[in-house]
Amino acid sequence: MTGSDAGAPRIVRLLLRYDGTAYSGWQRQADRPTVQAAIEDALATILAGETPVVHGSGRTDAGVHALGQVAHFETSSRLDAPTIRRALNARLPHDVAVAGACDERPGFHARFSAVRKTYVYRFAVGDSVDPFLRGHALHLFRRPDVAAMRAVASALVGRHDFRSFCAEARDREDTVRTLFALRVREGRHDLRVFATADGFLQHMVRALAGALLKAGRGDLSVDRAREILAAGDRPRAPAALPAHGLYLWKVDYATRGASPRGGGAT
Amino acid sequence: MTGSDAGAPRIVRLLLRYDGTAYSGWQRQADRPTVQAAIEDALATILAGETPVVHGSGRTDAGVHALGQVAHFETSSRLDAPTIRRALNARLPHDVAVAGACDERPGFHARFSAVRKTYVYRFAVGDSVDPFLRGHALHLFRRPDVAAMRAVASALVGRHDFRSFCAEARDREDTVRTLFALRVREGRHDLRVFATADGFLQHMVRALAGALLKAGRGDLSVDRAREILAAGDRPRAPAALPAHGLYLWKVDYATRGASPRGGGAT
Repeated sequence: MTGSDAGAPRIVRLLLRYDGTAYSGWQRQADRPTVQAAIEDALATILAGETPVVHGSGRTDAGVHALGQVAHFETSSRLDAPTIRRALNARLPHDVAVAGACDERPGFHARFSAVRKTYVYRFAVGDSVDPFLRGHALHLFRRPDVAAMRAVASALVGRHDFRSFCAEARDREDTVRTLFALRVREGRHDLRVFATADGFLQHMVRALAGALLKAGRGDLSVDRAREILAAGDRPRAPAALPAHGLYLWKVDYATRGASPRGGGAT
Repeated sequence: MTGSDAGAPRIVRLLLRYDGTAYSGWQRQADRPTVQAAIEDALATILAGETPVVHGSGRTDAGVHALGQVAHFETSSRLDAPTIRRALNARLPHDVAVAGACDERPGFHARFSAVRKTYVYRFAVGDSVDPFLRGHALHLFRRPDVAAMRAVASALVGRHDFRSFCAEARDREDTVRTLFALRVREGRHDLRVFATADGFLQHMVRALAGALLKAGRGDLSVDRAREILAAGDRPRAPAALPAHGLYLWKVDYATRGASPRGGGAT
């Protein structure tokens, strides 16, 4: 209604929650269900004639969940953001939800504008596996030593080459990241490891959580953790934990438009 | 090993958690999966030659969950209770777990010895359905008026004929129960209604939670709730809410043996 706006395309930002159990990760693949495909397919039925690409802040792996994934797409639709959100929620499968939608400034990009991301790895602790956390937390029969986990966490925080804590990196890949925080929170029946960084390498949170778990079981000292970090040698590092305990929690951006609320409680 | 104990049979008490989604309720049925059948079938593979009946504290309906269901069975097995628990957990499907097991005094009966039960009905509140609470809470798009819910809850507590708040009762059925407490707890993203009574009629918690929800939406006054209670007339009462928001939370017994911990957090 406001005439031609041939210059900057309209950018819509989405805040997403999803149960990743049934998906082969975020990124669209030819013959497997992915979160990106679910959202793009739903969007195509709403926006007449348009089939925008939905860009996520990052590609969650197969089975990884999200409480605060952020994505964006370009459109020339005149539907307002709340209407797009409601229409998407009516069309999306039950394990993917749009928790917020808003218009963004020109140039905003869910991935490239992100300055900080937080993931959480969730452990359930108890004598028996909790039926309600099946597929949503890694079960531990014994509570690990949280003080030992926190000591190793402190040694890993900072700006480092995290080559030892990721899936195999290409030779020339820049594997330096700033890990702003690595915190362990204790609940009555669970433990959560929160990791905040300017970016994460593939499997990095699961490898960090694996190192902390090993520390909590008395199998990894602070000195040894520092050695592994310095060595930049993946085979010596603790194995990455399984995907089903991992959640993308929050993505932060430097410039905030009318940003939808990030994060959330499980 | 302690010789013959032909007199009183050994009684083992179980504390159970289950996700009721896939089950046609507690009670064994010919051709449908039930929780009782799952436990009895697992038990039969552990206790050589014995196929004990597992008595629950009550029969949860199809789709209803449990965080603290209590059951018992008689056995002449000499396996200790922790071993029975571990063996059951190794054989049970992933949506049923034995959280505790212990020996009980002679005469203990999970149903007849119970003096108090607590159920919780869970509402999720938010602009979009939470993928992680799908099938485990009733979704509400708008937060109801909690003060109004609590006012009606106060009017329903006490010893009353709850014929208006249950599935159709037989003419001569005793429908008098003592509702000790009916509490509404508010979370950031959910609401929980806790109901504690000396016993519950079929669909009673779901009807009580339905009345509170109606009150919270401004459609049921305290006076009207009192009238419905006094009338003893089911068709005038609020509809029972769906099963998937309901959890058996805790069962209390007068005499405590070495009782496993009850209740739990979701």
